[in-house]
Amino acid sequence: MYFKSDNGSAVHPMVMDAMAKANQGYSDSYGDDLIMDRVRDKVRDLFEAPEAAVYLVATGTTANVLSLAINVTPWQAIYCHPLSHIHNDECNAPEFYTGGAKLKLVEGKDGLIPASALETAIASSMQGDVHCTQRGVVSITNLSEAGTRYTTAAVRELGAIAHSYNLPLHMDGARFANAMVASAASPAELTWKSGVDILSFGGTKNGLMGVEAVVLFDPEKAWEFELRRKRGGHLFSKHRYLSAQMDAYLDGDLWIEMATSSNQKAARLSQGILKLPDASLVYPTDGNIVFASMPRARHRQAMEAGAKYYFVSPTATTNGPDDEQLAARFVCSWSTTDKDIDAFLKLAQS
Amino acid sequence: MYFKSDNGSAVHPMVMDAMAKANQGYSDSYGDDLIMDRVRDKVRDLFEAPEAAVYLVATGTTANVLSLAINVTPWQAIYCHPLSHIHNDECNAPEFYTGGAKLKLVEGKDGLIPASALETAIASSMQGDVHCTQRGVVSITNLSEAGTRYTTAAVRELGAIAHSYNLPLHMDGARFANAMVASAASPAELTWKSGVDILSFGGTKNGLMGVEAVVLFDPEKAWEFELRRKRGGHLFSKHRYLSAQMDAYLDGDLWIEMATSSNQKAARLSQGILKLPDASLVYPTDGNIVFASMPRARHRQAMEAGAKYYFVSPTATTNGPDDEQLAARFVCSWSTTDKDIDAFLKLAQS
Amino acid sequence: MYFKSDNGSAVHPMVMDAMAKANQGYSDSYGDDLIMDRVRDKVRDLFEAPEAAVYLVATGTTANVLSLAINVTPWQAIYCHPLSHIHNDECNAPEFYTGGAKLKLVEGKDGLIPASALETAIASSMQGDVHCTQRGVVSITNLSEAGTRYTTAAVRELGAIAHSYNLPLHMDGARFANAMVASAASPAELTWKSGVDILSFGGTKNGLMGVEAVVLFDPEKAWEFELRRKRGGHLFSKHRYLSAQMDAYLDGDLWIEMATSSNQKAARLSQGILKLPDASLVYPTDGNIVFASMPRARHRQAMEAGAKYYFVSPTATTNGPDDEQLAARFVCSWSTTDKDIDAFLKLAQS
Amino acid sequence: MYFKSDNGSAVHPMVMDAMAKANQGYSDSYGDDLIMDRVRDKVRDLFEAPEAAVYLVATGTTANVLSLAINVTPWQAIYCHPLSHIHNDECNAPEFYTGGAKLKLVEGKDGLIPASALETAIASSMQGDVHCTQRGVVSITNLSEAGTRYTTAAVRELGAIAHSYNLPLHMDGARFANAMVASAASPAELTWKSGVDILSFGGTKNGLMGVEAVVLFDPEKAWEFELRRKRGGHLFSKHRYLSAQMDAYLDGDLWIEMATSSNQKAARLSQGILKLPDASLVYPTDGNIVFASMPRARHRQAMEAGAKYYFVSPTATTNGPDDEQLAARFVCSWSTTDKDIDAFLKLAQS
Repeated sequence: MYFKSDNGSAVHPMVMDAMAKANQGYSDSYGDDLIMDRVRDKVRDLFEAPEAAVYLVATGTTANVLSLAINVTPWQAIYCHPLSHIHNDECNAPEFYTGGAKLKLVEGKDGLIPASALETAIASSMQGDVHCTQRGVVSITNLSEAGTRYTTAAVRELGAIAHSYNLPLHMDGARFANAMVASAASPAELTWKSGVDILSFGGTKNGLMGVEAVVLFDPEKAWEFELRRKRGGHLFSKHRYLSAQMDAYLDGDLWIEMATSSNQKAARLSQGILKLPDASLVYPTDGNIVFASMPRARHRQAMEAGAKYYFVSPTATTNGPDDEQLAARFVCSWSTTDKDIDAFLKLAQS
Repeated sequence: MYFKSDNGSAVHPMVMDAMAKANQGYSDSYGDDLIMDRVRDKVRDLFEAPEAAVYLVATGTTANVLSLAINVTPWQAIYCHPLSHIHNDECNAPEFYTGGAKLKLVEGKDGLIPASALETAIASSMQGDVHCTQRGVVSITNLSEAGTRYTTAAVRELGAIAHSYNLPLHMDGARFANAMVASAASPAELTWKSGVDILSFGGTKNGLMGVEAVVLFDPEKAWEFELRRKRGGHLFSKHRYLSAQMDAYLDGDLWIEMATSSNQKAARLSQGILKLPDASLVYPTDGNIVFASMPRARHRQAMEAGAKYYFVSPTATTNGPDDEQLAARFVCSWSTTDKDIDAFLKLAQS
Repeated sequence: MYFKSDNGSAVHPMVMDAMAKANQGYSDSYGDDLIMDRVRDKVRDLFEAPEAAVYLVATGTTANVLSLAINVTPWQAIYCHPLSHIHNDECNAPEFYTGGAKLKLVEGKDGLIPASALETAIASSMQGDVHCTQRGVVSITNLSEAGTRYTTAAVRELGAIAHSYNLPLHMDGARFANAMVASAASPAELTWKSGVDILSFGGTKNGLMGVEAVVLFDPEKAWEFELRRKRGGHLFSKHRYLSAQMDAYLDGDLWIEMATSSNQKAARLSQGILKLPDASLVYPTDGNIVFASMPRARHRQAMEAGAKYYFVSPTATTNGPDDEQLAARFVCSWSTTDKDIDAFLKLAQS
Repeated sequence: MYFKSDNGSAVHPMVMDAMAKANQGYSDSYGDDLIMDRVRDKVRDLFEAPEAAVYLVATGTTANVLSLAINVTPWQAIYCHPLSHIHNDECNAPEFYTGGAKLKLVEGKDGLIPASALETAIASSMQGDVHCTQRGVVSITNLSEAGTRYTTAAVRELGAIAHSYNLPLHMDGARFANAMVASAASPAELTWKSGVDILSFGGTKNGLMGVEAVVLFDPEKAWEFELRRKRGGHLFSKHRYLSAQMDAYLDGDLWIEMATSSNQKAARLSQGILKLPDASLVYPTDGNIVFASMPRARHRQAMEAGAKYYFVSPTATTNGPDDEQLAARFVCSWSTTDKDIDAFLKLAQS
């Protein structure tokens, strides 16, 4: 019953095997390993993007901030949602890597930016007035921090708006796999075919040890990306072990299999919670994250029996009136089992 | 016969085993794993520094730049050797992480900063003149980029000078293990007892997959370090796999065993080269790196038979007059064998 | 009828005279001029702050960003109003000078931050969570960008909240003089006695050529301020001409005389506008700025006759339906005359 | 007898007059004043560069760092002389404004970079190796910090080398006027016709109050320059007073007249010193700066009688053996008189 985060889960055994297999003899370093050549091809095939530049980094923050840094100048704006990871959870890393670009928050329901709000935000930026933050880049998260997803149509609409202002569109896909499997769309359709120019293609939260690919659908700034990655300290000498992870991830659709499983568990959890008479969902459950509100007594029961997850409010605790509604976040991972879900539901129900 | 770098070698099997062992069930993330608690204790014990703050990062550049960043302001100087890794091989990462501190180069033979040169460099910095770069931090590399080492006495002398100006002393110990085993000194004697305030304690070049510890002997800036690590994108969610590496590294003196082996191979190589009638060492061989000069014909023979290493001059190639002397760098790792060395020597001799 | 900005006005003749008088013979440079010694004493006397550090810079942006930079780290937040100059009108200069601190917007009526909103904003910052922006500094503008002012009591309340979290309070006083004369309080009461730790004490908008003083009521970071000023390119070699301006400003209460006049003109304008049947104020007129809404026809008439001022909406023009209400900003300066005001009102009325 | 610096001198009366004349009525701010239109035309005419972008800033540091910032990325090198102002006298401002570019020092006699040394420095930069600082921009100072000048031929040679590597050439012309009048060349010949891409065209050291023009011979990055100027806090609201200074500077060749005078005074001083039996020049006197070595006794005599200038060594004083040779720097300005020179020489001789 570990629902604190999908990054609390272990690494999938097939990924571990691939790393062990890579651990043979010598290899050129810093991305010149042979496995990386294969990974690059696989990612390009997967996204139907034969020209794309593909790079691996070890953390999601890194994938995001390098992606943004090559697409924005220090006097420009990054349009993003108030709930976005780049705004709330990266300790000002975007500001650091971009040299001081400003995150402009675009409100929207359920963690998603509506097209109209994006249009308004960009339009109202006083482009060409030297006193004002200039327009820079749009960043959306799919699966969002609220556990909701952008449909292909929604991405396409946002991409069209961004492009109408000549702005690139970045997708933080730390949980791209979860958004993907919830969709009927192909990776290409959910990204560049809908206007995404650069993708943080997450692996760590979905069964890898620590690898995110960055996919530059337009490779023009590939060399700048490489320099920024190195300058940030993010170029790995023993890079083959990053390559091996991503190689295994894409092998036989392991990544889809894992995300499908975690989404199913979340759906099971979500449905179970909705059967409680006094519980409700805070956001729709589109992927592997459930935001639900229940009386404190139910939380207390589950937590005291060992269920691990966070309240949405950082100051909320199990101490207090039994019937006070408290919102909480539950994240399922590839290794979450039906047994975990059912055990939790049983506790919460009782 | 792979001598390009020690980071071309594989990960030691015991380290892989430790990672596999860590791959069980759920774990809190971002450094809150239980293995890290053990690692912290081990490092403190090893260095006889019960108060030290200990952090893990994945690359040597990161260890260095975070160490420097908490010890220097943007208008100050980092005193370092012209051959230092932070000056030559990190794509301006120190300038990035420090917000623009200036690397002041202090010349010295064999990649080492002499005490007198350091004293002169610091003294001549016009401290208190608002127009001039102020004094900041001293950074030395042990084992140095020339493959030479600072003795404990040498470190002590440099530490005394730095401290006489109230400057901290940073040691880039990407190859600290190799310097250590070449010395009769303890880890504590080679570091804080001789004036080192912060150490980049390398593991990646010595058999790990990608882990460096940063040891803050004075923990005062520990929290700032943590914030800078996160802001740089260097805090790993699945941190347990970093912890497991360092845990295995320090287990049963594996780290010393590996460095002892790589130093021995380098000594064997060095001695073999010196037996050639027309070869010479560029720098003394103190650790696991050999810089040697030989006629091109010998290099050609070895390289064409599969020996892999770099010429010192980036423009040198095997094409050209046979008898032209060309300097090259050979790096031995934990996995280098006597057989590798002897095979190379045989080729070079013929 | 020039109401575009108070910085469109000329320099007061007495200030010009003082500069001409300073233009004699040689003077040590970079702030070592003798006039600066006098200015420092005058500012300290004025603010009853004998220990304060006092510096001159030439632009308001500079005064603000240097003040912020010594009071916030790159991973912290600057709490400010959505209308604040540092957020809207400085092209990301605060982010640049602070190394990437984040401006957290605290909403409030009429351009003013209410105490309760500040408390909530600070309290909800997840201090101590390494992923999150840490608490940094509070910045308020007095006179605000809406032309409204913080009373002494309001400042005291905000100061108390900031200090209860150990955060410093910065006051952007680009129009401090206008706030002052609207108040019964002394300079000391409106600043450090109410909790202001550092003040941008503006002069340029109130009759100087280009000088703002920065007053550090706590001089602890004075040397850091000097280094940051130099590193920003803001230390003037021929500093005596900055000193001379501030010297004249404080001479015989010239600064108060000028602000009193500009406030009176704004009041006259405000009252005149309110007499129009279809006009209203957008914000109360506390100082020298009037925000008023009138039908387009009135604006058109005034503008076509030569009145110069800006619509609030950057896209608004005189073209369009006559009766559409359009908000506009009118700024009075020391050189605005009753005749200007009356001429405008006459036009708008007709 | 004030020879500490040319920035210790007053402002030329004609410049003061122009500022007073500009002090009439209202003017649009931030560079939209009408005088600036005239200045722009004058500068373009002067340099025979009708397409050039022309901007005014108030300090030499600002002119330099903004010029560099638009011509270098944070992972690149700025090639400059070890004596250069940008390296020694700007408190790491170039690193700040460029986001951490590295100043690579290119040695050369008399404060000048020889073509061969520049070629070697650039060639040895490992362009395309992601670990290494990439090639960025070349910056030379004319008149140099040693008081020497680059001939047109020398500039042309350096420009050709820079351009052969596709690097721009920046000229720090804080004392461009002094270099100009020492030359038979036109402003255009000494700059863009010889390969200079961007010029810091100084005025402050040559009789202005505080204005430097930046001339972008290629206007492609003009808008970026404007944004960086604003973001640095260097865009003046009451810009007309900067414009007025530069307007007067270029009026009737006032700038040339002033520089001619200061160069003549330096020549007179230099020749006088050389007549002393035990004095010598440290560098040739090409412009308005004299570096000379004399016995301490002579310095003592002059200084005690009121001559003001600096020893080259910051630790040198008038206390010590009479006959010890001490180098000193003497700077003449537009207001230096023959009487000043002769009075000093008389003292030094006695």
